Amino acid sequence: MNLKLIENHRSFGGEQRKYSHYSEVLQCDMTFSLYLPSNKGMEKIPLIWWLSGLTCTDDNFSHKSGFQRLAEKYQVAVMIPDTSPRGEHVADDESWDLGQGAGFYLDATQEPWAKHYKMYTYITEELTAIASSLVPNFSGKESIMGHSMGGHGALVMGMKNTERFKAISALSPILSPSQVPWGIKAFTTYLGENQTSWKEWDASELVKGTGMPPIHITQGTEDGFYPEQLTETYFLKNAQENNVAVDYKKEEGYDHSYFFIATFLEDHFAFHMEYLR
Amino acid sequence: MNLKLIENHRSFGGEQRKYSHYSEVLQCDMTFSLYLPSNKGMEKIPLIWWLSGLTCTDDNFSHKSGFQRLAEKYQVAVMIPDTSPRGEHVADDESWDLGQGAGFYLDATQEPWAKHYKMYTYITEELTAIASSLVPNFSGKESIMGHSMGGHGALVMGMKNTERFKAISALSPILSPSQVPWGIKAFTTYLGENQTSWKEWDASELVKGTGMPPIHITQGTEDGFYPEQLTETYFLKNAQENNVAVDYKKEEGYDHSYFFIATFLEDHFAFHMEYLR
Repeated sequence: MNLKLIENHRSFGGEQRKYSHYSEVLQCDMTFSLYLPSNKGMEKIPLIWWLSGLTCTDDNFSHKSGFQRLAEKYQVAVMIPDTSPRGEHVADDESWDLGQGAGFYLDATQEPWAKHYKMYTYITEELTAIASSLVPNFSGKESIMGHSMGGHGALVMGMKNTERFKAISALSPILSPSQVPWGIKAFTTYLGENQTSWKEWDASELVKGTGMPPIHITQGTEDGFYPEQLTETYFLKNAQENNVAVDYKKEEGYDHSYFFIATFLEDHFAFHMEYLR
Repeated sequence: MNLKLIENHRSFGGEQRKYSHYSEVLQCDMTFSLYLPSNKGMEKIPLIWWLSGLTCTDDNFSHKSGFQRLAEKYQVAVMIPDTSPRGEHVADDESWDLGQGAGFYLDATQEPWAKHYKMYTYITEELTAIASSLVPNFSGKESIMGHSMGGHGALVMGMKNTERFKAISALSPILSPSQVPWGIKAFTTYLGENQTSWKEWDASELVKGTGMPPIHITQGTEDGFYPEQLTETYFLKNAQENNVAVDYKKEEGYDHSYFFIATFLEDHFAFHMEYLR
């Protein structure tokens, strides 16, 4: 599968790796990052997926969140995909909230995006097979978390694969993409004007389904994108009407940055580990 | 003093601030970062200075080390200066290990550097006065730590001000700048050919003095700059001959990166707090 280890740093006893590979699904070269704990306990290792927000690559979370301390503490592997297909031959847009760096974790159907923008299939199939081959002593148990656009991605992937992901969590997620400017722009571009096609990529719609994993969400009150892009109203209403238990917490004074993410990651890891052991 | 708060993020309960100001000593606009813990214990707050390495600004440590968790845990403020004077009118060099981003924490005597490159006086006087005014409930107790070029800076500032700094620590520091390529290039440029003037800026010389604070050093064995730039031979020999207690630890498999710094920061904070309470 043409996989190349391009970085490997010892970190908190484990290994922070970065790989490049050619993606058959996305038809371009991609990178991703993977943390492997030291496996000193020799127990089976579960896997958490982290999906990043707009403009990020796989580096932001690995460089800025401090998650490696928690992954080593809990002996869990962490897989960090990039946020979109990349390259000069890949369709792009001048704005930072569309195109490269802004794949929205869906499979695009509209031209010129449909050829490369298949982040959903890339992550849930191609990268999943790669992760299985790279995590030694893998327990097979997985969960998913993310931030902002990646919070949207984590909720969508988790709720579309309820058998697979044991827990879902999100920090300042886009909860109702069909209702907010970032989501409307991306969905119109990638999926077209027909809003029926948007529903399978909208957490507020998917939460009406059955067998949902436990969901934990943290939102800072001083987040400059809240509530405009990150409103929780529709999601929580639909979750409640469908008896889906969502732990939605607001945290006083926190913004949208990695300072916020780093602060609450310990809560999120502890939540996931309840379901990954 | 023309101080402007340009960023303020809640982080682990405290505040990660960033300021800009005009420096009278450096004769240019500067930025620095300051973490203030929540002061929830209402005890007096000590202050740790962090000095960054080559190419860094004050952002690298505040974005990539995860130190805020420890600063809040121990209720200590942390002051993070930039690594050199900055600006279009400030002398610079094309190479990354000289000029802007590479001030070496000394007071330059050679032209065209002498006008702006006074990082030692800037930090120990101008920024010190600013810090005193910004840390609420300040205990007056201070210590200093740093990485690589900043490890050199921390050792030099700490050993030139033995009454002031209660502890010194360094991660992968330049311990003998007069003997290694980075240091020889910088000292020749900033201080001139006469090596007598280099001695007051060389930790391996300063360690021959009296009344040294406790010193803790961590060095990764897979650091690409070790031992060429970071050799410990002269420093440890001189420390031992002068009966200065240095705890020098090598850590297997770690490199020069922030993954290494983040891993061992907990040890360093615990060491400093022994002397700051």
